Amino acid sequence: MIDPTPLVGALPANKPFVGPEELARNAGITSLIRLGANESSFGPPPRALAAMRAEFERIAYYGDPEMLDLRTALARKHGCAIEEIAIGSGIDDLLGLVVRAYLAPGDVTVATRGSYPTYVYHVDAYGARLETVPYAENGTVRLDALAMRARETHARIVYLANPDNPSGTFAARDAVAAFVRALPPHALLVLDEAYGDFVEAHDLIVDGVHDNVVRMRTFSKAYGLAGARVAYAVAPRAVVTSLDKIRNHFGVNRIAQVGALAALDDRAFVRDVVAEVARGRDEYARIAARHGCATIASHTNFVCIDCGSRARAETVVTELLARGIFVRKPAAAPLDTYIRVTVGTADERARFGDAFAEALARSDTNANASR
Amino acid sequence: MIDPTPLVGALPANKPFVGPEELARNAGITSLIRLGANESSFGPPPRALAAMRAEFERIAYYGDPEMLDLRTALARKHGCAIEEIAIGSGIDDLLGLVVRAYLAPGDVTVATRGSYPTYVYHVDAYGARLETVPYAENGTVRLDALAMRARETHARIVYLANPDNPSGTFAARDAVAAFVRALPPHALLVLDEAYGDFVEAHDLIVDGVHDNVVRMRTFSKAYGLAGARVAYAVAPRAVVTSLDKIRNHFGVNRIAQVGALAALDDRAFVRDVVAEVARGRDEYARIAARHGCATIASHTNFVCIDCGSRARAETVVTELLARGIFVRKPAAAPLDTYIRVTVGTADERARFGDAFAEALARSDTNANASR
Repeated sequence: MIDPTPLVGALPANKPFVGPEELARNAGITSLIRLGANESSFGPPPRALAAMRAEFERIAYYGDPEMLDLRTALARKHGCAIEEIAIGSGIDDLLGLVVRAYLAPGDVTVATRGSYPTYVYHVDAYGARLETVPYAENGTVRLDALAMRARETHARIVYLANPDNPSGTFAARDAVAAFVRALPPHALLVLDEAYGDFVEAHDLIVDGVHDNVVRMRTFSKAYGLAGARVAYAVAPRAVVTSLDKIRNHFGVNRIAQVGALAALDDRAFVRDVVAEVARGRDEYARIAARHGCATIASHTNFVCIDCGSRARAETVVTELLARGIFVRKPAAAPLDTYIRVTVGTADERARFGDAFAEALARSDTNANASR
Repeated sequence: MIDPTPLVGALPANKPFVGPEELARNAGITSLIRLGANESSFGPPPRALAAMRAEFERIAYYGDPEMLDLRTALARKHGCAIEEIAIGSGIDDLLGLVVRAYLAPGDVTVATRGSYPTYVYHVDAYGARLETVPYAENGTVRLDALAMRARETHARIVYLANPDNPSGTFAARDAVAAFVRALPPHALLVLDEAYGDFVEAHDLIVDGVHDNVVRMRTFSKAYGLAGARVAYAVAPRAVVTSLDKIRNHFGVNRIAQVGALAALDDRAFVRDVVAEVARGRDEYARIAARHGCATIASHTNFVCIDCGSRARAETVVTELLARGIFVRKPAAAPLDTYIRVTVGTADERARFGDAFAEALARSDTNANASR
């Protein structure tokens, strides 16, 4: 049998995430409330659903590989040129393309330790070298330390999720602008704004294209289209040209293109989702406080709840799963004592509240029993 | 601005195909009969459509990254283990993964000159080296010459589309088995069976897994799901493991997974499509003969029609587009005098027949005028 390339052969057989279906299968559970992948319990905008249903007649046909209609609408939304918009089948796809285009084996990239695992997955798989800076104890991203590490290591890419995942924290416009200025002149900033729709646009980096910055946005979160697989980057023309040389040109499915385009027009729906998510975050904070657990103030559709210790957080995740509720937890210190819970519907939140109380109690019983 | 890696920086800004939407835009045409990308004019099986429509309620959720339900059904269909099935968002996606996993920069791969351009696109983009063997004059793939070139060049991957695209020719089971035996022991055969549903299963390579062979199948052709983006490989476990280390785990959209699974159950529909496509191929041969044009006997859902010269074939493609009909033509000799036409519905075939007569006449008028 032929061996893979030395690079691929040396990779561990890891995957960025174990999916909820696999977790449920392993736990022997057939029905799951999904509060672990920050999907939207509120679904896509009705206009997007209607447009996708209508497009079904044409599912035998490939989507437009140039995705001109969607790119035109996105360029208008962000005040940039069509040539400054790249579309992929999710931010995961775009992250892989940017890593491949800008990191040769051995090149350095800098990110916060414990931030989005799929970025790290791509960095490893292309043989690049990851340098990390830990979160501050309060869960914020240490922008000064990140920029310093980028300068020290001659990083070619700096990865920043803002709002951040998994912490939910957010750096406002001026802080990000200062951060961009502090980066070395030959570093590309990958600014992952997957959760950007949950903050006010005027708090994000000034709209449009910035030198050396690739902003990524998705339809998977506030727009409720995770299953459709569509996201985009706003980036300098040269970056879009580089991605165009290597991307899977017919990779974004036809239905997703149509759904995303229609979703952009349904601003009232997305505004309502964002407002309901804010109410849900407050509710989670109250639920956590009831049990003496701190939360990190979140600017996303999820909340991190401190369970006090890593072991207790792990037990709570397992006990919640046994009760039919899927959540995740950050892997790296100092956030590894937290669980991360997506804001679901009011009913889902209530069910989480009940199950969380049970899971905590069970965790404490276990801990006492093992003493 | 940061430069891309030397590899990506040196790539030309090419793309494997210009899409029909872009061709139509450039020609100022708003409506197009699509007979150029071998999509299915007969659409997906009704059961697939029904399953996808029902799944829409859950489009806010990512699909199962393990795609266990679909892989289980495919393993049953092909008499292999689940661990021997890899799924991607189209064969294009899978080709990119196999090239990435098995061809380091400078490694050699062998293919027929003028065969599927997207394979070549990936080979170039990963910095591997392509060695080619031309088609025989009658459009068949020269298996002996391919195997010899693979041995001479120490090729790590050999690419064979069977049935072939763009010629439509087919090598039967025994010929392929002899070809596999003639390959060097450390070469991986990528056997692209995108059109495999248009021939009898007992004429294809023996079902199941073969050492050093990656068979690829798609739902984009006979199953009418090109817009949904789902395809799979049947391959040795070690190959599936290698792809698993680098694939976009959440990349296949939820609707496609459900549609593909349901499509597998609708055998009668696919059988009817294949039978209608066979009738359509005969019809194209008669249309071509009426104008004194030869055709290549096809085992796919398209037919190559000889226009006599490269220039005439190019004019016919342009004139057909001006009449609202999208077809393509093979780029490389000896097939560059042909146009390649997808078998559409009876109505589409009739419209192609009329437009083809006009396009040929126009082409000859142009040729006389320029003398």
